[in-house]
Amino acid sequence: MRIIGIDPGTAICGYGIIDVEGSRLKTVAYGAITTTPQDTDAMRLEILFNDLSDVLEEYRPDKFGIEKLFFNRNVTTAITVAQARGVILLAANQQRIPIYEYTPLQVKQAVVGYGKATKEQVIYMTMNMLGIREKIKPDDTADALAIAICTAHSSHNEDLRRRIQI
Amino acid sequence: MRIIGIDPGTAICGYGIIDVEGSRLKTVAYGAITTTPQDTDAMRLEILFNDLSDVLEEYRPDKFGIEKLFFNRNVTTAITVAQARGVILLAANQQRIPIYEYTPLQVKQAVVGYGKATKEQVIYMTMNMLGIREKIKPDDTADALAIAICTAHSSHNEDLRRRIQI
Repeated sequence: MRIIGIDPGTAICGYGIIDVEGSRLKTVAYGAITTTPQDTDAMRLEILFNDLSDVLEEYRPDKFGIEKLFFNRNVTTAITVAQARGVILLAANQQRIPIYEYTPLQVKQAVVGYGKATKEQVIYMTMNMLGIREKIKPDDTADALAIAICTAHSSHNEDLRRRIQI
Repeated sequence: MRIIGIDPGTAICGYGIIDVEGSRLKTVAYGAITTTPQDTDAMRLEILFNDLSDVLEEYRPDKFGIEKLFFNRNVTTAITVAQARGVILLAANQQRIPIYEYTPLQVKQAVVGYGKATKEQVIYMTMNMLGIREKIKPDDTADALAIAICTAHSSHNEDLRRRIQI
């Protein structure tokens, strides 16, 4: 079972791909799609869409995990991230990859076991669980891997529940 | 010069296409792309993207007008509309149509000549300027035609300014 996690954004969109075999997690690839403010908003969305579509075609994940958006403060940032999220969901849906959405709380609980964990704790545990020694840069990529782990755990629990029901 | 105006949304996305010859405006086509809550968010974005891409291919507009997003109250609605706006901008950019963005104030001023005009006044003046006698439904489609008129006026003024500079 191959899973991709995505941390959406127009300037930086992190992605992390892992393979899950039983309770074992194996890192496949991770990185970030970046765009520059020299391009128009629409061109940045097209670059993001094209690059992400290429990543999905190359690695063919079975599941696609992404964070739910919550915004209280900066609505302008919310609009920009949500526009990026629109083309990201489109790319996943065009390739018929099932999409799973999690709140930041669910991601923290899956990775650290504690919903109020700090960003640093999440990154530390993500690197630990995936056996990654070098600091993952940028943070958006580490977040994407954390979302992939969360998706793996939730799928695992789903499968367990199904088995128990049978 | 052919212009398309778009009023973005996932449930209802209005579009209106007009031809501009000097100061004359001619209605070409108008309508709305609709999706149902029975589909997932990602599927609704894909339907919107595909249907709008078809409209753009069929009518081949020279300019693409869309409203800027402003939200003060409902952030959840803002996120949904912004996600739709992301795939809409992608569709326009993929076909290399120049994109123009206007605030609701600019649209009202272009159509009614008064920034605090009511929705009804904007619809009435839009129908009047385009010689449309039947009530345009839904309102999103009338808004899209108003945005097309605003884009036409702004382009016209741009051209005038250029001529004067020369």
